[in-house]
Amino acid sequence: MEAYWAAAEARDWDAFGATLAEGVVYELPQTRERISGRDRYVRFNREYPGDWHVRVERIVADAEGLQAAARTGFTVTGEQEEEEAADLDAIHFFTFDENGLITGVTDFWPESYEPPAGREHLVERY
Amino acid sequence: MEAYWAAAEARDWDAFGATLAEGVVYELPQTRERISGRDRYVRFNREYPGDWHVRVERIVADAEGLQAAARTGFTVTGEQEEEEAADLDAIHFFTFDENGLITGVTDFWPESYEPPAGREHLVERY
Repeated sequence: MEAYWAAAEARDWDAFGATLAEGVVYELPQTRERISGRDRYVRFNREYPGDWHVRVERIVADAEGLQAAARTGFTVTGEQEEEEAADLDAIHFFTFDENGLITGVTDFWPESYEPPAGREHLVERY
Repeated sequence: MEAYWAAAEARDWDAFGATLAEGVVYELPQTRERISGRDRYVRFNREYPGDWHVRVERIVADAEGLQAAARTGFTVTGEQEEEEAADLDAIHFFTFDENGLITGVTDFWPESYEPPAGREHLVERY
């Protein structure tokens, strides 16, 4: 997973592809989009518009090396230079094959929202 | 974690509280809300409006028992009986102390959105 993030941040698409199994499947449950296969998934990342930088905030990995989850923070700049940079939280679930190659990536991009009323007596804002 | 979800689904608040460290901290990064302490966090769950049921879809846990991540699906019914049930995906990160009690819970509730244009050549919808 460290190689995956480092290669993505460096836009080193050969190194990025080398972390992936040939049959890797990428899923975005929020849009119900799926990308199948290493070549397409590398291309999706290589063609992604705008500029972005990623910080890995937390990794949870099982002992067998078959599953992991990560929290990251992305700083995203649009294609127009005047646009302000946006900070986005993301969550990623990974599965791996027995050679340590990534077989599945599932991404979530949760957005900020206003808290519902009725729990102010229990909650502080940060 | 299994005891935590089973107790929540059963509304067994004593069993739910028994999975938590006294100083447990609950955070919702999307609303920047924080609830500190077992009593408040149990009360937050006990008082949560409407009806809901949870399915655990994936758990990733480290070998040391200090961290875990989970994907769940919630079926939520509002307080008004006419309201349709909603299906929500949720993601949860947990930390544990050396006794296996939960010291931290961070929840994310990602919402559906329309995919941006420009990647149709790589993507299928599901």
